[in-house]
Amino acid sequence: MSAAQPKAELKPRDPDWDAKVRASFARQTFMHTIGAHIASLSPGRCEVELPFRHDLCQQHGYLHGGVITAIAANAAGYAAFSLMPANSSVLGVEYKINLLGIGEGERFFARGSVLKPGRTLSVVRAEVEALRGGVRHPVARMLATMMCMEGRPEPGLEVRA
Amino acid sequence: MSAAQPKAELKPRDPDWDAKVRASFARQTFMHTIGAHIASLSPGRCEVELPFRHDLCQQHGYLHGGVITAIAANAAGYAAFSLMPANSSVLGVEYKINLLGIGEGERFFARGSVLKPGRTLSVVRAEVEALRGGVRHPVARMLATMMCMEGRPEPGLEVRA
Amino acid sequence: MSAAQPKAELKPRDPDWDAKVRASFARQTFMHTIGAHIASLSPGRCEVELPFRHDLCQQHGYLHGGVITAIAANAAGYAAFSLMPANSSVLGVEYKINLLGIGEGERFFARGSVLKPGRTLSVVRAEVEALRGGVRHPVARMLATMMCMEGRPEPGLEVRA
Amino acid sequence: MSAAQPKAELKPRDPDWDAKVRASFARQTFMHTIGAHIASLSPGRCEVELPFRHDLCQQHGYLHGGVITAIAANAAGYAAFSLMPANSSVLGVEYKINLLGIGEGERFFARGSVLKPGRTLSVVRAEVEALRGGVRHPVARMLATMMCMEGRPEPGLEVRA
Repeated sequence: MSAAQPKAELKPRDPDWDAKVRASFARQTFMHTIGAHIASLSPGRCEVELPFRHDLCQQHGYLHGGVITAIAANAAGYAAFSLMPANSSVLGVEYKINLLGIGEGERFFARGSVLKPGRTLSVVRAEVEALRGGVRHPVARMLATMMCMEGRPEPGLEVRA
Repeated sequence: MSAAQPKAELKPRDPDWDAKVRASFARQTFMHTIGAHIASLSPGRCEVELPFRHDLCQQHGYLHGGVITAIAANAAGYAAFSLMPANSSVLGVEYKINLLGIGEGERFFARGSVLKPGRTLSVVRAEVEALRGGVRHPVARMLATMMCMEGRPEPGLEVRA
Repeated sequence: MSAAQPKAELKPRDPDWDAKVRASFARQTFMHTIGAHIASLSPGRCEVELPFRHDLCQQHGYLHGGVITAIAANAAGYAAFSLMPANSSVLGVEYKINLLGIGEGERFFARGSVLKPGRTLSVVRAEVEALRGGVRHPVARMLATMMCMEGRPEPGLEVRA
Repeated sequence: MSAAQPKAELKPRDPDWDAKVRASFARQTFMHTIGAHIASLSPGRCEVELPFRHDLCQQHGYLHGGVITAIAANAAGYAAFSLMPANSSVLGVEYKINLLGIGEGERFFARGSVLKPGRTLSVVRAEVEALRGGVRHPVARMLATMMCMEGRPEPGLEVRA
């Protein structure tokens, strides 16, 4: 009576998508500052890895929620960017994150997955896990909106002359 | 015919609220790492200030959205914590942030304001502004849920034995 | 040393904004079904009013959260639409709502206010209050993203041929 | 080196969970008003079905976003409630929804799935699909926080004497 719809195809529109995403990530000084890197990348998916460090913590000695959010948002943003055309940039419109467990572990993985690619807006989910004693524990879930700025300055944002 | 309800009273339940909030903030190594501090504090309100730094940026050289979110969430969390009883801790349940403008400026201010204090959950808004050439520009808006853990370990979270 | 930025000007770009918003609202059969109407309208602001009815309730006899969300999202959407150019339509991209108090009262008011108007995206807040015994009680807070579709079908959405 | 964590076990703590959830849903007059019912129910999961009706629409004749949100929030809330102990009630704390596609179809399905059950708070995702011409199309994604009120009135909410 009803059939599952074929998955939204996650086809990159820029043949240079892999190098483009990695180059953009590399320009983010904040990722260098906290020691995060891209662990894996495929069209519509991006995984960011972050080793735990004691200078990235909240008041109880666990990874700070802001750091958790930063790697989740980056994984989401670059998952979306991997599908965007050449001559475009990606802008984070908004995101919402639920913190599911404490930021305790030896390393953290944030995985972004595009739910709905769009010409202007893409909807992306991300999940963060902590690797603790060899087991992955859920840390956070995010639902995010990313925007594609194609061949033009970022709309809706102020640009300094 | 109708009258505005008197504002929810933002009365601290812990006489030591000011020192408690500042001590907790000071224990957050991540705030030291990025150079953020509390600019002002009153019951139900907390302002976090962050000078711009080139090692906290995204790919275009503006303040990274994760950093913007981190100071907003901290301002929201400590605004809520200022109203919580002694012998409690604050936990970030979830937050949603809309990025309104680019993270460009000499310094950034995140202001958290409790909208609804609760025994268990508090709802808080936060706004982030950039000081750019002497003028404050809107950067972000957040709506957040904070939880009070009164005299007990954090419920719903895994605690290592 | 610093000055508050002048408020984002909330100037309608369509001289016919008032009639346009009211006509669109009138076409929403769901608003008729629940008995909601526009209580007030100005550029960038819209207030929706809903009298309580026993057929709009959740399991405890209070106004259903879905109804609260529907009037909040409508107030937000039409606040944004009031500032959009002629030959455009408004699309709800996403919204997040915190329920602050129970849906108990004789009537409910949802007020939407544009925080950041944009050419493509607008960020809007909404608040819902219940009028109960002559006093207004807070019920909900929303933070929403609305999109302007200017002179073209809705991007990113499937349109049936 | 690392192993996937065993899925959070979704074990109902109330042997009467199935009847309890259905009875609560049946008390929601708003679900009767719009014609929604529970299509399937298992521990930690709930699917709500809604046939399209012309009196539930927005300005373009598609299902209203408020109705989409209402069935998503209900699916999420009852997915969480199915895991809660006897002598408790469920409260929607907050939710965020992204609208992915237009509300066009013969019938709509909202599926809620508990991501993280908790003693006090549960985090739940929901997705809404439209059945259109025999094919399911994605309509919306939700990330929600639900609260368990165990044997006591709802904390943080005003209760009329």
